[in-house]
Amino acid sequence: MSELTIWTLDWVPPGPRGFVRDLRLRWACEEAELPYEVRTVPFDGRETNHLERQPFGQVPFLDDGGLQIFESGAGLLHLARKSDTLMPRDPVGEAETLQWTIAALNSIEMVTVPWWFLKLCGDADNQLSGWMTQRLDHMERILSEREWLAAGRFTIADLLMADALRVPDVRAFGDRPASEAYVARITERPAFKKAQADQIRLFEAADAKRAQSH
Amino acid sequence: MSELTIWTLDWVPPGPRGFVRDLRLRWACEEAELPYEVRTVPFDGRETNHLERQPFGQVPFLDDGGLQIFESGAGLLHLARKSDTLMPRDPVGEAETLQWTIAALNSIEMVTVPWWFLKLCGDADNQLSGWMTQRLDHMERILSEREWLAAGRFTIADLLMADALRVPDVRAFGDRPASEAYVARITERPAFKKAQADQIRLFEAADAKRAQSH
Repeated sequence: MSELTIWTLDWVPPGPRGFVRDLRLRWACEEAELPYEVRTVPFDGRETNHLERQPFGQVPFLDDGGLQIFESGAGLLHLARKSDTLMPRDPVGEAETLQWTIAALNSIEMVTVPWWFLKLCGDADNQLSGWMTQRLDHMERILSEREWLAAGRFTIADLLMADALRVPDVRAFGDRPASEAYVARITERPAFKKAQADQIRLFEAADAKRAQSH
Repeated sequence: MSELTIWTLDWVPPGPRGFVRDLRLRWACEEAELPYEVRTVPFDGRETNHLERQPFGQVPFLDDGGLQIFESGAGLLHLARKSDTLMPRDPVGEAETLQWTIAALNSIEMVTVPWWFLKLCGDADNQLSGWMTQRLDHMERILSEREWLAAGRFTIADLLMADALRVPDVRAFGDRPASEAYVARITERPAFKKAQADQIRLFEAADAKRAQSH
């Protein structure tokens, strides 16, 4: 049995397939060649059926030999301790990885996720658009100057930033060639492709069972 | 000379005084009794005058004996390595601190900060209000059951979560007595009060000089 278990939902509708955040942990495990298994909680009742494991009713959460941890960003930082493939061990490389990991969560997603939420509510030209433009323009400048965010090589900072920037509506928001090339390059990585295919396969396999029971 | 330098702006208008995020790093240093100094970059031109140190034109950023790190959340995790006052050293306590630190950044602030932004734009009853209610209700449930978020004692997770929840407009959004008691209790800590007073004093002291030059 694997020490690492990644918990996700047992089914989601087609829209979010390939984007549910368990993908981040699968991807990290694939990059670092850490063995893991995937287990699920029911989609129906997800708002309340696993609050003792994830207090906001979200997925994923991680089990590492009994140690439990929620928030995909926290799971990534936890996994990064296990393999320097995910984060260098020298102080400068580690600080760079840490700052860009948090930037993806708190400077990029803090704008792109609610902007997207408002767009899905039907408000495409919403009041977060100006802020979104600023933040994505800063990223475009950065990504036009370098291949990787931290330590001159792939780290969880790139995993998380690329995952934030690859959302189709975010990717289509203005023309930013360096950001586009970055997302294309990083999502070509075999570890990403395997993680994404595995996630999509899990949700597709649940379609038939769900159709029977509903 | 201190090893640790916290960089912030040389002045801000009265509104954000006591809330600029250098306070998070000051507060952590005060809790852990880590010596530090505070240095500043100009408020005027802040969008571009320190991009090589903070790529989104924000503050704070931290200098630790030459090692540089931006994003207040990353700075806190970096400081937490220096003192177990800020984060326990056992794996479970560390995982709990990490998950709640990231939750404050990516599950709470990802909703409360853009909600507040829309409110400041004049849209108080905005489309993020439902999501905000959900997230704050989850926090109320958690905080009604425990005194601290992680490891049964104060950690950077409480520092960050209390800093996110103490924003007056967030605090006034609905009636959540456990969250209110949590914010009141944590902002009574001497380390918070000193950090906040020091920040306000710095910005007030710059008023006269600024009035002369404008």
